[in-house]
Amino acid sequence: MVNEQYKGMLSGKSIIRELSEYATRRGEEIGYDNVFDFSLGNPSVPCATSYTEAIVKLHQNMDPMSLHGYSPSTTIPSVRQAVADSLNRRFDMNYGMEHIFMTTGAAGALSHALRAVTKPGDEVLTFAPFFPEYGPYVTGTGAKLTVVPANTEDFQINFTAFEEMLTENVMAVLINTPNNPSGVVYSRETIERLAQVMADKQREYGHDIFLISDEPYREILFDGVECPYPSKFYDNTLSCYSFSKSLSLPGERIGYVAVNPACTDADILVPIMAQISRGTGHNCPSSSVQLAVAKVLEDTSDLSVYETNMNILYDALVDLGFEVVRPGGTFYIFPKALEEDANAFCMKAKAYDLILVPSDNFGVPGYFRMAYCIDTEKVKRAIPVLREFVEKEYPNR
Amino acid sequence: MVNEQYKGMLSGKSIIRELSEYATRRGEEIGYDNVFDFSLGNPSVPCATSYTEAIVKLHQNMDPMSLHGYSPSTTIPSVRQAVADSLNRRFDMNYGMEHIFMTTGAAGALSHALRAVTKPGDEVLTFAPFFPEYGPYVTGTGAKLTVVPANTEDFQINFTAFEEMLTENVMAVLINTPNNPSGVVYSRETIERLAQVMADKQREYGHDIFLISDEPYREILFDGVECPYPSKFYDNTLSCYSFSKSLSLPGERIGYVAVNPACTDADILVPIMAQISRGTGHNCPSSSVQLAVAKVLEDTSDLSVYETNMNILYDALVDLGFEVVRPGGTFYIFPKALEEDANAFCMKAKAYDLILVPSDNFGVPGYFRMAYCIDTEKVKRAIPVLREFVEKEYPNR
Repeated sequence: MVNEQYKGMLSGKSIIRELSEYATRRGEEIGYDNVFDFSLGNPSVPCATSYTEAIVKLHQNMDPMSLHGYSPSTTIPSVRQAVADSLNRRFDMNYGMEHIFMTTGAAGALSHALRAVTKPGDEVLTFAPFFPEYGPYVTGTGAKLTVVPANTEDFQINFTAFEEMLTENVMAVLINTPNNPSGVVYSRETIERLAQVMADKQREYGHDIFLISDEPYREILFDGVECPYPSKFYDNTLSCYSFSKSLSLPGERIGYVAVNPACTDADILVPIMAQISRGTGHNCPSSSVQLAVAKVLEDTSDLSVYETNMNILYDALVDLGFEVVRPGGTFYIFPKALEEDANAFCMKAKAYDLILVPSDNFGVPGYFRMAYCIDTEKVKRAIPVLREFVEKEYPNR
Repeated sequence: MVNEQYKGMLSGKSIIRELSEYATRRGEEIGYDNVFDFSLGNPSVPCATSYTEAIVKLHQNMDPMSLHGYSPSTTIPSVRQAVADSLNRRFDMNYGMEHIFMTTGAAGALSHALRAVTKPGDEVLTFAPFFPEYGPYVTGTGAKLTVVPANTEDFQINFTAFEEMLTENVMAVLINTPNNPSGVVYSRETIERLAQVMADKQREYGHDIFLISDEPYREILFDGVECPYPSKFYDNTLSCYSFSKSLSLPGERIGYVAVNPACTDADILVPIMAQISRGTGHNCPSSSVQLAVAKVLEDTSDLSVYETNMNILYDALVDLGFEVVRPGGTFYIFPKALEEDANAFCMKAKAYDLILVPSDNFGVPGYFRMAYCIDTEKVKRAIPVLREFVEKEYPNR
């Protein structure tokens, strides 16, 4: 019989994907230029040309047996060393090759990190607002995801709730900074306090509590905002990274887990992740893609469009009277809806061909997410439409 | 705490990998030319040049946003269509795009296929001799792997044992033809009888029994041997393929599952596999690799060296008095050891720098595997060493 659990998941479709599919259909009807699709977090700039040059050169010059050979189960040593060196240089860490495990993007990274430090039945805490895929990522391991309510003041951490909810059964805490969907970057103060609370609770409970830090937006920062490297503040940290956004390579599925060298069992966590791979069929990202990113680790695509778009949108939203926290990075913004029911709000916007994602799936009611990884020209054209929508639908605010 | 289950797996190392690592160390000592390493099933010929041309061209000419964009969760439609068309042409099937799911090699394919049609606690049958990684592949899903004893006569199926062991709790049967480690190709008669037994038991038990057919060696056939396409004989078949061996791309992690269109729930099995991906962090193979293999689906590397090597080895083994079934494909041969304890036999061979893999891990005692995906010149040089080993260690046979 076909597995009923997975069969059941088919009906629980992602609202983001549904909205994006609607936008595509609508685009076919009225012309895609006339649909203001803020649904999907898909990079809107091409990959760094240095990546293209690197991978073409590898295919033209490298021995194909080495380029396309099996990676060791712990992934390619020279690539792991290059990642360690780059992180050490950038974040003043002391990773060795043995602390780096290359993965198929952040999804692969989180999947391994979560399995390595939890067992079925354990609890994993995350903070609202959060990326909805954390649901299947965590429940897929057999652990349970519990969501700490948002601090809607500034979308930093709600520490009162966090300290209460960090019970003895919690084995890992999952953070995402810069954050999808809020665009907020956790401040140094937030990370320091988070680390302090976790360290205290580790002592109190007498067991490890791991910090799993999901950092695919680490390179997309605005206004010179500081983005502290969480692992620098808390030893039991597994940093999960993806090159999807920084190099605009989402389809290539390439990222890594970096295990803090001072972490419990730091020397065996990568071999453990290699074992996890055997059971899930992950078995390493593409060898040629591993080797190519290793050549361009500190390059990025031209990410400036995201800041340009953020500034235009933020100013317009404030001007229209929205309550909104200014993003410090990413390509998302997360304003408060103009009525309590975010679904109703987004449904009304849809009639103006404004495709906005209601916040309920992100763990906070009453907000909406706009993904502004689209052409600046389109962001500009969306402003009068947004104005018309607000003025017509909410005239008496 | 670090997950104890995976931690425990660290001590249970793969004997194949250990032998291969020993061969590498020994090669550093005495020169790699002097080590006759028959341990690893790693392709020894470069990838098809048409693949290199295709992927370079894609990087040079295709819009990078399309080349590197997210695959849909069910993988890239044009690639799925190309695979369906090719299979239909070659095996007289009627796959649609909707029956094909691209995966990270055969490991990814098996991992999805097994999860799709079993639930934790179910039993999966396979046949000795079998690829040892089936252990973690199956137990990783929560199902239980049961091994039908070998038919050592010709390494076709032991039907007496199979019919007894195909109990009501068995939800899937996993076959591998051409077979690793025996090199044997299941005959048309074998596949027909297998299909008949399974169809009868399905009727008797009133539930589906799926055939999961692992076919990475499908393109490596000798002497014009016929390799029947199992899905043609049994509707409830999921065919798992990898381009690792045919195109010599093991590191690129690219393959697929092809769901027989007449299979139970054929229309939802690929969407179900896409859901499974969310929980395991698989989330599609590399987009550029998907697009490149789609251009060269019916090409292969120059695979003729494997047949050349097989003939040399088979003749030599027969000449030395080994009992051995002539392989119909793959790059493996599986002779009977010259004493009951295959481990002792292989240990003695090691003293002659002949690296042979004992058969116990493949589910049959008393045999050994030789992977002859090495230079023909080295196979030739290994024959007198093999002769010396046999004559000195087993003089009184």
